[in-house]
Amino acid sequence: MDSYLIQVNGHGDHAPMLDVHLKSTGNTISPGKAKGRKPRWAVRASEMSKKTFNPIRAIVDSMKVEPNPKKAMISLSLGDPTAFGNLPTNDEVTRAVKEVLDSGQYNGYAPSVGYQSCREAVAAYYNCPEAPLKAQDVILTSGCSQAIELALAVLANPGQNILVPRPGFSLYKTLALSMGIEVKLYNLLPEKAWEIDLEHLESLVDEKTACLIVNNPSNPCGSVFSKSHLQEILAVASRQCVPILADEIYGDMVFADCKYEPIATLSTNVPILSCGGLAKRWLVPGWRMGWILIHDRRDIFGNEIRDGLLRLSQRILGPCTIVQGALERILHRTPPEFYHNTLSILKSNADLCYAALSAIPGLQPVRPAGAMYLMVEIEMEHFPEFENDVEFTERLISEQSVFCLPATCFEYPNFFRVVITMPEEMILEACSRIQEFCEMHYQGAEGAQDLECDK
Amino acid sequence: MDSYLIQVNGHGDHAPMLDVHLKSTGNTISPGKAKGRKPRWAVRASEMSKKTFNPIRAIVDSMKVEPNPKKAMISLSLGDPTAFGNLPTNDEVTRAVKEVLDSGQYNGYAPSVGYQSCREAVAAYYNCPEAPLKAQDVILTSGCSQAIELALAVLANPGQNILVPRPGFSLYKTLALSMGIEVKLYNLLPEKAWEIDLEHLESLVDEKTACLIVNNPSNPCGSVFSKSHLQEILAVASRQCVPILADEIYGDMVFADCKYEPIATLSTNVPILSCGGLAKRWLVPGWRMGWILIHDRRDIFGNEIRDGLLRLSQRILGPCTIVQGALERILHRTPPEFYHNTLSILKSNADLCYAALSAIPGLQPVRPAGAMYLMVEIEMEHFPEFENDVEFTERLISEQSVFCLPATCFEYPNFFRVVITMPEEMILEACSRIQEFCEMHYQGAEGAQDLECDK
Ligand SMILES: Cc1ncc(COP(=O)(O)O)c(C=O)c1O
Ligand SMILES: Cc1ncc(COP(=O)(O)O)c(C=O)c1O
Repeated sequence: MDSYLIQVNGHGDHAPMLDVHLKSTGNTISPGKAKGRKPRWAVRASEMSKKTFNPIRAIVDSMKVEPNPKKAMISLSLGDPTAFGNLPTNDEVTRAVKEVLDSGQYNGYAPSVGYQSCREAVAAYYNCPEAPLKAQDVILTSGCSQAIELALAVLANPGQNILVPRPGFSLYKTLALSMGIEVKLYNLLPEKAWEIDLEHLESLVDEKTACLIVNNPSNPCGSVFSKSHLQEILAVASRQCVPILADEIYGDMVFADCKYEPIATLSTNVPILSCGGLAKRWLVPGWRMGWILIHDRRDIFGNEIRDGLLRLSQRILGPCTIVQGALERILHRTPPEFYHNTLSILKSNADLCYAALSAIPGLQPVRPAGAMYLMVEIEMEHFPEFENDVEFTERLISEQSVFCLPATCFEYPNFFRVVITMPEEMILEACSRIQEFCEMHYQGAEGAQDLECDK
Repeated sequence: MDSYLIQVNGHGDHAPMLDVHLKSTGNTISPGKAKGRKPRWAVRASEMSKKTFNPIRAIVDSMKVEPNPKKAMISLSLGDPTAFGNLPTNDEVTRAVKEVLDSGQYNGYAPSVGYQSCREAVAAYYNCPEAPLKAQDVILTSGCSQAIELALAVLANPGQNILVPRPGFSLYKTLALSMGIEVKLYNLLPEKAWEIDLEHLESLVDEKTACLIVNNPSNPCGSVFSKSHLQEILAVASRQCVPILADEIYGDMVFADCKYEPIATLSTNVPILSCGGLAKRWLVPGWRMGWILIHDRRDIFGNEIRDGLLRLSQRILGPCTIVQGALERILHRTPPEFYHNTLSILKSNADLCYAALSAIPGLQPVRPAGAMYLMVEIEMEHFPEFENDVEFTERLISEQSVFCLPATCFEYPNFFRVVITMPEEMILEACSRIQEFCEMHYQGAEGAQDLECDK
């Protein structure tokens, strides 16, 4: 029974990789040529496919544990807000697609960068005086994932490097390594609400730096950067002449007491590719509708990057047209209450979760300000039984049937990530089980002291 | 006015590429490091984006001609069966998606290779005793284009080569070159109804051959391979131990007097990745629903290739879930009359078009047996005014406002491709204009003889 594994990243039905196959089943001599080749079957997966490595999958697949059969599984691991059924999308969103279907007008091929009218709709929605956008500044993609893929593919050559947050969303590294792009991790500071360690960031820039990825609001941190912090980040990019890939898929998803600033609205010179989509704010991640917004007021990207994005988009020809066709209606008709409602649920869940976890000995949650996540530090010195976050979360599954992602998945050991999209009762139940677990394994100050010497 | 350009490949709203940008707008000295770098803005598009080259776009963009303002434009160039409104999809197809939307059950993330139940539905639909399929043999993709991309990406490394038909669909080369894979073109023989020149094919195989692409039924030829010819192709693959990438997006789209054989049903040993999708047969190309069917009865691909495909699928996380959710219903409920009706229209158009073009001096159409295309040879010796097929089709636009793709787009000069999905009247009008054009420019035997010496 590994259904929780399947839930983690949504694909678990393949057997683990076996050793290389090398068969010899066809030894007939070739009549067509005589190049000294003695054909035999030896089909191997490409280097690129082997380099396409999802750390979450690798770590989670290696966690070979069974949940406690006496307790129903609670998975707090999946960044899919629809997973629990308590956060449905808005009826207007669904209706918009049904109208498009009825029209019969959106079944053909769209341009590979998206229908002009739909690009216009997205441009109009995000346009503002500080960061003007026109249709030609928008490229529609198959989810924000493809937006990130295209942005990286156009900005970086193999051998170059990109600057990636730690902790950070694993897709950046997965994509970069598969393309032969080096990843340099810059630190986020939990004690400063996950702000970027700017000095560290700037120290990493070199001649081969192709772009800086800024993810705000953040997965896995749930943090939201202030205007002044974003300005500091932009100052680094501007000084170092490094373009920004802004992953703003959680844009506008911030709790009432704080404000979201699209990074492009704060700069007049740094060229920025902002990646976003419908997945999170409109609660339809499966629809695979994303976009790149090209902000380039100084014409630094110029036609070169625009044309590159266009070329790359032709490989798979854009996102599903019936969702494209619905975009304008989705953006215009979704009632503001829908967004407010989602956020007030998330905020209340965040508060609940933060309060409950704060009370648990040995855990240090960091209060989130947006997105759908919360990071929790494990004071490992108080849990000498466990070697690391992976072991901690593994045992949490086998004893309490609660699954949180170990933050090693985000290059950040000794933390775990909690998703806050579940119904309230489930959060409470999960937190009380985590409490039981921690109380069981917590070692007070005396036991801890010995171990701290080892650190 | 270049609206016909936009129609060709569906994207024409970008200005042509300009020269490389190299700006220097930020020369402040970096405080964070002193690596001798003097930062300035120099953002360039990656090599990969530059190598991603769509020959159709390049050729068509270079055709800087205006249609004849006195004649309405007729574009016979676009492989989009929905373009003319005369071939709508079936109501059951649309209804299936609307039911999925109403259910609210398909808005979340699916596994990156597709929902298990949807993979099962596709497997059941294409399963047969000669080529059995299970859910795990199916990978759902964003259109057949992404199926081909994944198949190539998993089978071939940079520096290897693939065997590609000439004339053939341009995406194979576009993808391969962008990945650093060499393309070797094998000949199709118009005089043998576009069968493969098997000797030529086999002579191209070498140690670095990663796969053989077989496109049946064919774009741009409209040809359909017989069972015995497919067996000959399989014999080459088997002898040479080269796996097959079968592009069967036009599978089952053959006229009544001939039979379509999925290539995998004719082999027990050659490992085959068969790429298909909803685009053509169900007349919804914009929906971007494709698949790879893995046929590997001798376990030559093994887990190695399956795992590689899974890893690669994680880059952009699969096709739109509301179309996935509708797949089973689409495959089961679409009434047989729908397919028959489409094919009888295509067949009748093919006959009409073939008859009309056969009667035109200087043209030699090749009769199609399936898909949605027809290739026409231009007896260039009778048109000494025109240097090649590009010039011929260019002038056909400026004089007659009829746009056919020059087959140079398919690596096959001196032919052009006609799409046969338009309403009958439009075909007749187009053919009569082509006739007028040819009669105007045709040079009889005497004029031609001189030129033939040059050939
Ligand atoms: C930070 C971040 N960026 C991008 C994505 C991918 O978004 P999409 O589902 O639209 O591809 C996610 C999804 O979880 C995310 O958390
Ligand atoms: C031979 C061939 N293969 C693949 C495709 C791409 O299909 P899809 O639109 O599903 O990506 C096409 C589209 O015209 C085609 O003609």
